[in-house]
Amino acid sequence: MKIVALAGGVGGAKLAHGLAQILKPEELTVIVNTGDDFEHLGLYISPDLDTVCYTLAGLANPETGWGRVDETWNAIAQIERLGGPSWFRLGDRDLATHLERTRLLKEGYTLTEITRAFCKAWGVRHAVVPMSDSPVRTIVETDEGDLAFQEYFVHRHCEPRVKGFRFEGLGSARPATGAREAILSAEAIVICPSNPWVSVDPILAVIPIDEIQGRRVVAVSPIIGGRAVKGPAAKMFAELGIAPSALTVAEHYENVVNGIVVDSVDSELAKQIRIPTLVTNTIMKNIQDKTELAEKILKFIGTLS
Amino acid sequence: MKIVALAGGVGGAKLAHGLAQILKPEELTVIVNTGDDFEHLGLYISPDLDTVCYTLAGLANPETGWGRVDETWNAIAQIERLGGPSWFRLGDRDLATHLERTRLLKEGYTLTEITRAFCKAWGVRHAVVPMSDSPVRTIVETDEGDLAFQEYFVHRHCEPRVKGFRFEGLGSARPATGAREAILSAEAIVICPSNPWVSVDPILAVIPIDEIQGRRVVAVSPIIGGRAVKGPAAKMFAELGIAPSALTVAEHYENVVNGIVVDSVDSELAKQIRIPTLVTNTIMKNIQDKTELAEKILKFIGTLS
Repeated sequence: MKIVALAGGVGGAKLAHGLAQILKPEELTVIVNTGDDFEHLGLYISPDLDTVCYTLAGLANPETGWGRVDETWNAIAQIERLGGPSWFRLGDRDLATHLERTRLLKEGYTLTEITRAFCKAWGVRHAVVPMSDSPVRTIVETDEGDLAFQEYFVHRHCEPRVKGFRFEGLGSARPATGAREAILSAEAIVICPSNPWVSVDPILAVIPIDEIQGRRVVAVSPIIGGRAVKGPAAKMFAELGIAPSALTVAEHYENVVNGIVVDSVDSELAKQIRIPTLVTNTIMKNIQDKTELAEKILKFIGTLS
Repeated sequence: MKIVALAGGVGGAKLAHGLAQILKPEELTVIVNTGDDFEHLGLYISPDLDTVCYTLAGLANPETGWGRVDETWNAIAQIERLGGPSWFRLGDRDLATHLERTRLLKEGYTLTEITRAFCKAWGVRHAVVPMSDSPVRTIVETDEGDLAFQEYFVHRHCEPRVKGFRFEGLGSARPATGAREAILSAEAIVICPSNPWVSVDPILAVIPIDEIQGRRVVAVSPIIGGRAVKGPAAKMFAELGIAPSALTVAEHYENVVNGIVVDSVDSELAKQIRIPTLVTNTIMKNIQDKTELAEKILKFIGTLS
């Protein structure tokens, strides 16, 4: 069974981790959002790619979901002492990833090649690929003007009111070879419980939609009981005038998915969803939760025509 | 009394530290070699500037003389895990210096301005200035070809046999404004016990020699009992066919200095030196040693006409 998972950061990484417990390396490809990538301190930083890779490698900080376990913060503390930008909290071990990635990009390697090499070094056996090797940059349109994603997300703590989104670079961006090949040979696509607006939509914008449509595509709602488990997804729905719920997530993906997974707390709401719906626990606190959810999703896919 | 110290790395930093114990901030300027500077991992690294600043700030590792005290090595360990270049041992706290310096250089600040800002942040009250804000690169000509200085020094552990040196960029390099002003207003110049070939000669090559000549200039021999306290100075003398000794150090500087300081173990040899010579303990193991040597040098300068 060949499965493609579309993932953003923490939520996506968790479900990808669950899927990796069940599927063989050749059965799973995780396509990761790179719309959040940015340059900072002269370093090329890919937050979602790193979160997914660290999680699959067992190197992620289990408390935050992002960054490295057993991390130290000596470099950033000294940058702060020097009056440099310290709002983006780069750990010492994490810094190595950005330094080496930046060096290899300058040498002409693609993000796909670099991610593959890093995964090998970290012992990640399943394929993790960026959505594109070309730059696509998520811009958050707010009542305080356009903000680059990390500026909005980390520096401004998601405070400005969202008016819309756009993905710069889409015109010239192609899906990464590995991403497209994985989609074309996939028996099913799982949209992980990542932010629909800024984690999944960039991927869906880069991959030709007709290559996704027609396959079995299942999305896991990141909105549970009207709230996001993590991050600004619910706030974004609300500011765009849409009540955040599993129902509106299903509507958001209606042109793409033919199955949706919602949390048990939304079982009443689920009755209003018109496509096949799996109602189950979707909160992933540990590896058992991740694996059980992955198992149920794979079974659910098997029931879809 | 206005004193200029010309310094390379560890030995130079030690004497500068001693001088800073006695002289007021406005009385001392340390002009530092930048011929060893290089780009590595996309970072602009100034090893001698950092060693001098860290030492004056009390932030240097007392065991090695270079790098930071209480340092951690998590980033470089992870770069090594990723297969990246790890021969230049960058500590986590030290990395902050290079990241922030590189960022500020890209923003258009000069090395002089950046060094001043860093010194302020680190609490260094005496002036530390690079010899030049333009790139000057020490090339070590060896029997295995030309090697950039850090390639020779760190990566190749000074193993290739030295045939000569050259300083690339000299043609277009001007002394940094602060360096030249300090020389022009100096009552005396102290050449610290740094490597004559690769730490002091680049500075003497950048500063117009007629601005140095005619002043009271004293050099401290880095060669003690025929050996260098640290680094390849003695090996370089020998490979160039010159017996390494306080005597040959005096000859090396004969066009520039009018006084020389040699270690007590070389008291017999000192009798052969034709210029005024101070024979004293020049080994600096602690702050007392540094301060005592600095005091004696300042008195010695007072005896020179």
